Amino acid sequence: MPQHNKKYGQREKFYMAGKIYPDLRVGMIKVNLTPTVTVDVDGKRHIEPNAPVYIYDTSGPFSDPDVKTDLRKGIERIRQPWIDSRRTSGQGTTQMACAKAGIITPEMEYVAIRENMNCEELGIKTHITPEFVRAEIAAGRAVIPANINHPESEPMIIGRNFAVKINTNIGNSATSSSIEEEVDKAVWSCRWGGDTLMDLSTGNNIHETREWILRNCPVPVGTVPIYQALEKVGGRVEDLTWEVYRDTLVEQCEQGVDYFTIHAGIRLQNVHLADNRLCGIVSRGGSIMSKWCLLHNRESFLYEHFDDICDIVARYDVALSLGDGLRPGCTADANDAAQFAELDTLGELVTRAWAKDVQTFIEGPGHVPMHKIRENMERQLSHCHEAPFYTLGPIVTDIAPAYDHITSAIGAAQIAWLGTAMLCYVTPKEHLALPNKDDVRTGVVAYKIAAHAADLAKGHPGACVRDDALSKARFEFRWRDQFHLSLDPELALQYFEEAGHTDGEYCTMCGPNFCAAKLTHDLRKLNKKNGTDA
Amino acid sequence: MPQHNKKYGQREKFYMAGKIYPDLRVGMIKVNLTPTVTVDVDGKRHIEPNAPVYIYDTSGPFSDPDVKTDLRKGIERIRQPWIDSRRTSGQGTTQMACAKAGIITPEMEYVAIRENMNCEELGIKTHITPEFVRAEIAAGRAVIPANINHPESEPMIIGRNFAVKINTNIGNSATSSSIEEEVDKAVWSCRWGGDTLMDLSTGNNIHETREWILRNCPVPVGTVPIYQALEKVGGRVEDLTWEVYRDTLVEQCEQGVDYFTIHAGIRLQNVHLADNRLCGIVSRGGSIMSKWCLLHNRESFLYEHFDDICDIVARYDVALSLGDGLRPGCTADANDAAQFAELDTLGELVTRAWAKDVQTFIEGPGHVPMHKIRENMERQLSHCHEAPFYTLGPIVTDIAPAYDHITSAIGAAQIAWLGTAMLCYVTPKEHLALPNKDDVRTGVVAYKIAAHAADLAKGHPGACVRDDALSKARFEFRWRDQFHLSLDPELALQYFEEAGHTDGEYCTMCGPNFCAAKLTHDLRKLNKKNGTDA
Repeated sequence: MPQHNKKYGQREKFYMAGKIYPDLRVGMIKVNLTPTVTVDVDGKRHIEPNAPVYIYDTSGPFSDPDVKTDLRKGIERIRQPWIDSRRTSGQGTTQMACAKAGIITPEMEYVAIRENMNCEELGIKTHITPEFVRAEIAAGRAVIPANINHPESEPMIIGRNFAVKINTNIGNSATSSSIEEEVDKAVWSCRWGGDTLMDLSTGNNIHETREWILRNCPVPVGTVPIYQALEKVGGRVEDLTWEVYRDTLVEQCEQGVDYFTIHAGIRLQNVHLADNRLCGIVSRGGSIMSKWCLLHNRESFLYEHFDDICDIVARYDVALSLGDGLRPGCTADANDAAQFAELDTLGELVTRAWAKDVQTFIEGPGHVPMHKIRENMERQLSHCHEAPFYTLGPIVTDIAPAYDHITSAIGAAQIAWLGTAMLCYVTPKEHLALPNKDDVRTGVVAYKIAAHAADLAKGHPGACVRDDALSKARFEFRWRDQFHLSLDPELALQYFEEAGHTDGEYCTMCGPNFCAAKLTHDLRKLNKKNGTDA
Repeated sequence: MPQHNKKYGQREKFYMAGKIYPDLRVGMIKVNLTPTVTVDVDGKRHIEPNAPVYIYDTSGPFSDPDVKTDLRKGIERIRQPWIDSRRTSGQGTTQMACAKAGIITPEMEYVAIRENMNCEELGIKTHITPEFVRAEIAAGRAVIPANINHPESEPMIIGRNFAVKINTNIGNSATSSSIEEEVDKAVWSCRWGGDTLMDLSTGNNIHETREWILRNCPVPVGTVPIYQALEKVGGRVEDLTWEVYRDTLVEQCEQGVDYFTIHAGIRLQNVHLADNRLCGIVSRGGSIMSKWCLLHNRESFLYEHFDDICDIVARYDVALSLGDGLRPGCTADANDAAQFAELDTLGELVTRAWAKDVQTFIEGPGHVPMHKIRENMERQLSHCHEAPFYTLGPIVTDIAPAYDHITSAIGAAQIAWLGTAMLCYVTPKEHLALPNKDDVRTGVVAYKIAAHAADLAKGHPGACVRDDALSKARFEFRWRDQFHLSLDPELALQYFEEAGHTDGEYCTMCGPNFCAAKLTHDLRKLNKKNGTDA
């Protein structure tokens, strides 16, 4: 971790306490900056301090040098006392139930503190109070995924009136990866900034892989339960039944999965809408359920048993992520009848989930050219009653395999600005192979960029503090401060050092005579002197 | 080059002739695709051909296996006969002069053919005719940079009613790089898709480096002449004079530079507007001219001699790129008074340039958060009379050094969609070091993505042909076709092969049971059979 490295000694783990719940310890990264030193034309030195910057931190205990972690034992169960207390007090199980009852849970105060990144210290006003969090959850506009059996997870909130979040996907398939690799990738993705983690494993050892991930994961974990259900019936779609699926749900609820992607929006009557598409159905869950519907010529058991599903997950406060099984798989198929018909169904399902106090968000595409992005966001908000939107990308052109973290970051930034609450990351290997650790890092950073760009555009409280502190450090040649403040301090430092740079007042890019920053400093000295002389 | 590699044997160099000028040979890349083979439920094979796809090609003779290139001799001077013919016929020197006189030059027909990528063959209508090109140039809405002394350059057009273009920067500084490296980078950037090339060298051997680049460069070359002028006066800003600058312009015009960035928009009265900025002035040319104005307490010689500059460049048909010397260097400084005051001056200058038939475009920022991008584009169009806009990025957040190709591709795609005609690429090393060849490749591909995404959103004729062909290939497991059609066939293939993939009907990402594409094909067979049986 950066802060374990002497070079990054100025980053430190920092905890803020709650006011309603004084025992809360909300982890952040505090970046301590060096002062600004200027020398005026008369040779006099001026020293001005630079205020520390607080950064939203998803790495959990792994970035705290005072905490010893052991993957075999799992990390601290920080939410256990709150969960126990709710159980004995007879409060509702789900955050939504509590919110509707007017109760501000510890999770709600935790996310309020977390979102604000200590911006009050800088005098920046914020709309994000614990009460605001409660109200947003009660209205269904925000979700805190928080299975009572995943007490290791640090509370985080998904909603468009909060910082944009990113999800990372990991998981093995029948032909790749080991458990250790996947757990290592999970911790790694949190280190770089992943806000939630989906385990999409479809191969062997699904249950055991997930157990290891959950016990070590400081962020909410999501799954697509149909994958494990299909494994249970030997990969034969026609043999899938409600009973097998229900048992899988219970198994995963018990284990601690925080949210499920459920493709209950696939309706028998809509499957044929994808017939004339260029790329058909590209959602794995969507294609499985479509095949099931056609083979049996009936509505899917997910749609028919949707209320039963809600009853199960409500007991654990597992959130639902209503999957877009008919999402477009290429820009040519974007915004078509199949996609929007499913979105309408998801809008119907979200109200049924809310009736049972189940926290719910809606999945979105996929592949969408830029001029069709806005329509997606507007339809989702209106047809799904402002439930949070969770989109994959979208990828805005199909011609760049090996660079789809970029094709999709372009779309992700735009849709997040328009109101998407969480972005599912895409790595450079999308469409080509499963990601390795380097790909996870690249994908996460690309998506942190998209999410943060949207936070800036939306005016998230204090979002620009980090940008402005970094820009000031850059302009003042405080190179180390610049790196401490950046999304990937190590890569920035590596590029800088490989070029043979030192900490001087210019660099090899322009050389001393052509450094605009240096010239500006000269100008300002000149102005000051002229001002004094005048 | 891909087409020299056996693995990419299905890409070939292809030339189209003109109708007005039958001798024109407009180079493109033709991608020959394999047919689609399907097997129905009864085991019957169906074979359907896939139409070839034509790709805009900037690599010049270097991608033609039938042409022998020798860097010491330079490439073919394809425009020489047209230039000679205009000289003897007494036609105007600049493309704008010809356009205003109603003359369609060979360059104009060349770019019309080039823009359309043979889309007529597919029955796609296009608004881009030679006459349309002429009219756009006459109106100042488009520019063909084409110095009469750079006949090696293949004509290309910059204007918002044409495909979005990208510029790449290369160049050594006092502390880095050799001539060979820079020439190699120039050819390399054209290979990956750079439409124009700026040589920003500031170190030794400026003249010689440029000569080598020009004689081997199939795309227009731009420079910032103040850099060389400053070298001539030993780096002392105060010693810069109109005479030194004028001689430098003439020297570079004679050599064949196609466009000059001129920071004539810096006005004495506006320099102080940048005083309270977070990052001051970050344009090298802008900071030089600002310092000059303050040191001499007078208007810059660039502004005062702007008409003289136009008279010089008009004799060679060198285009002007009016530099934004006060562009913001961080998101905090975006859209401020300094930036917009300069833009107003550039609007005044563009009309003066047009009066002398000088082709002109306008440079733009820089660093702009997403919510402030639109204002930039709209002000530029209205204040600069629809002259083409040429922006650097913009970078939409400052917190990601080492990833600024991504922070800026996000902004570039948006501003290009809104009307920017050319994007100046940014590499991962921006703010940290000078780019090496890998960085150039990454930067170019990131910007080809942004430009193409904008072409799709704007509905450039036939832009989606390539996307749709690639998507179809992906869906049909024609992996090789998919790679031939992609922006970086080699990297896509590398990722694919490293994962141990073969050309089968699924891959290691999902495995056979979870392949949505495979499931969709099964569904379609099922549908067909049911349809037949019914």
